[in-house]
Amino acid sequence: MASSCWRERSLSLSDRPDLHLFTPGPTGSTPEVIEATGRPVVPHYGERFLTVYNRCIDLFKVVFQTENDLFLIIGPGTAALDASLSSALPDGARVLVPGGGWFGRRMADMCRAHRADVDFVEFPLDEAIDPEVVRRRLETADVPYDAVAWVHHETSTGVLNPMEPVAKAAKEQGALTIVDAVASLGGVDLPVDAWGIDLCVSVTNKCLAAPPGISAVSVSSAAWEAIDSNPSSRSWYLDLRTWRSYREEWAGWHPFPSTVPSNIIEAATTSIEQILEEGLDVRIRRTAEAATAVRSGLSRLGFEMFTPDDIASPVTTTAYAHPELPAADMQRFLMERSIFISGGLADLAGRIFRIGHMGRSIERSEVELLLRAIEDALRDAGISVSDGSSLESIWV
Amino acid sequence: MASSCWRERSLSLSDRPDLHLFTPGPTGSTPEVIEATGRPVVPHYGERFLTVYNRCIDLFKVVFQTENDLFLIIGPGTAALDASLSSALPDGARVLVPGGGWFGRRMADMCRAHRADVDFVEFPLDEAIDPEVVRRRLETADVPYDAVAWVHHETSTGVLNPMEPVAKAAKEQGALTIVDAVASLGGVDLPVDAWGIDLCVSVTNKCLAAPPGISAVSVSSAAWEAIDSNPSSRSWYLDLRTWRSYREEWAGWHPFPSTVPSNIIEAATTSIEQILEEGLDVRIRRTAEAATAVRSGLSRLGFEMFTPDDIASPVTTTAYAHPELPAADMQRFLMERSIFISGGLADLAGRIFRIGHMGRSIERSEVELLLRAIEDALRDAGISVSDGSSLESIWV
Repeated sequence: MASSCWRERSLSLSDRPDLHLFTPGPTGSTPEVIEATGRPVVPHYGERFLTVYNRCIDLFKVVFQTENDLFLIIGPGTAALDASLSSALPDGARVLVPGGGWFGRRMADMCRAHRADVDFVEFPLDEAIDPEVVRRRLETADVPYDAVAWVHHETSTGVLNPMEPVAKAAKEQGALTIVDAVASLGGVDLPVDAWGIDLCVSVTNKCLAAPPGISAVSVSSAAWEAIDSNPSSRSWYLDLRTWRSYREEWAGWHPFPSTVPSNIIEAATTSIEQILEEGLDVRIRRTAEAATAVRSGLSRLGFEMFTPDDIASPVTTTAYAHPELPAADMQRFLMERSIFISGGLADLAGRIFRIGHMGRSIERSEVELLLRAIEDALRDAGISVSDGSSLESIWV
Repeated sequence: MASSCWRERSLSLSDRPDLHLFTPGPTGSTPEVIEATGRPVVPHYGERFLTVYNRCIDLFKVVFQTENDLFLIIGPGTAALDASLSSALPDGARVLVPGGGWFGRRMADMCRAHRADVDFVEFPLDEAIDPEVVRRRLETADVPYDAVAWVHHETSTGVLNPMEPVAKAAKEQGALTIVDAVASLGGVDLPVDAWGIDLCVSVTNKCLAAPPGISAVSVSSAAWEAIDSNPSSRSWYLDLRTWRSYREEWAGWHPFPSTVPSNIIEAATTSIEQILEEGLDVRIRRTAEAATAVRSGLSRLGFEMFTPDDIASPVTTTAYAHPELPAADMQRFLMERSIFISGGLADLAGRIFRIGHMGRSIERSEVELLLRAIEDALRDAGISVSDGSSLESIWV
């Protein structure tokens, strides 16, 4: 069967003229970023390429607000997170993982895969991490924790977890701080150095609004100490020491251990430049405004929010399905109009839907297009909604 | 400094209208593949995406000539190779690594990073692996080897290593076979199942002539046995069991543990379709013809080949620098004409240059353009060459 399958020509995924991605990743990019993605790949070494590559690293550092080392790992955020855990955690490391939701649980699983001794402190799906609980666990531990690892923006629930107080509590007890900021970076403020994040991981394809392919990890000096004294790391590609040694020994030519996709570097560079030209603070404010507008609009249409206002992430809105319109039906209705939102994961499947506020989807015209389409979906299901009612006073 | 660096707009890497890549990766792609790469990213889940994704896997299986499981790992070939070693090798595994050159040595390093007990049997840079040496080592080992790991096409030297006899010797002694076929797949014949390769790794961006971003690994049932009984793997993202469990538990929706770049899947699918439409055997024959033509042409111009004919890879030609023209000067001359070749690595830096026969560079017009440009480089250095003399009778 495999030997003849190539005869049927595959579908093109983008024969729809204009996709509206409200998924919490991937994100719609600007025309300039899409153009950069489609540039022919060039050799990923030598002075000319490194000018762009090093600039891309510098731009990431601006968004991370860090002076720490920063590496661009080729692969998804999961790869950079795995590199962090693999490099920094010795076998049996005591790791406190506070969190709720899919990615919080996954963080605990990943630490366990690296043979850590994990205490997963689970919070309900519609609650954020309570820093006081974390602090007490750290202060009352019989054996001190080596690290605290948590997710900044929990994409499965739309909860934005606290950063500074958790990091502070961890650092006070001498624990490393390891953060999955995959979905938050660029959409909410994340001053990595000021907040004391030792290993912080993010990607190109969420709030940075570029295509997937590159992840980034910042590494503090405390993290390097842990990495350099780790007797039990067991990796080559995802050992941060491999990346450091190539950066040092191959500087000026090929300061990374594998083939870097030049077009994704160009696309990410272009996208971060656009964010910084607008102003990171402006982008963050507009992200929050889009989230507020969507929450207001949905509330006007009778949807109940899943996440309380005070912990709702500006990056993803989660709401319960309308009592008279199953989430999957609404998703399908929108998809037929080239509008993509996401459903709930795991325990929340069928109960909630999720709307990302990343990249192009934060534009006012896009937000209004989405809300109008949701109005249409409700009307299509026989629910009475007056035209444009979801848009009243949604912009603060 | 970092905070203002974004103000200087970055160079575009591809403002040269027409790049001619004769590097042994990355490779020049067809216009259709470049077009697919530049398509807007779409959600990487659900039925519509999976139709293309699963087809991409099937197409890879055709080129691998395998019925084994095959996973598309997001990342470079190094990631898929690391996943293979990480998953299959327990701590202290006895691994025989025969090889010479940069990537052979790197294979040994990678196995050691995974805590294997490595016997690296080094061959001179201009020699291929001798299967008889491997066989004797396997047969006379006091403690049986758990695995033999080697590189098919050694890109640093242009040597094509033997596959079938090495694999046969390994399998006869019950050792797993692990092959880095990153640079060979699609350019030379590689019947993974017929030759008994348990874990075989390749990528999109060498002979498959698509952009970087995705690697592929095929996993035999013997490999799964080793993986499932490995007590010491220590990874999450690069644990093949993670990939298998997502494939099983998330089939039909998201059968992989992280974000898949939809545009690279589309580009790889397009490129493999083009190869299979031409005929894999035809593509392989044309690759060999291009290599022969380049070797003939270079010989006519007075270059001495680095690799003897009988072990020269059809995928990369390596030749000594001309006695009167340093390799770096020739590279620079060509680069100014948008023609990219590669220099020597490590011990061979400055001594040899390397020309890839992958993707667009195997077209006759490209080969002739390259040889004419090398003629020009020689003339520019004051070496007498009659016009077009490198092209006489090079096509067999």
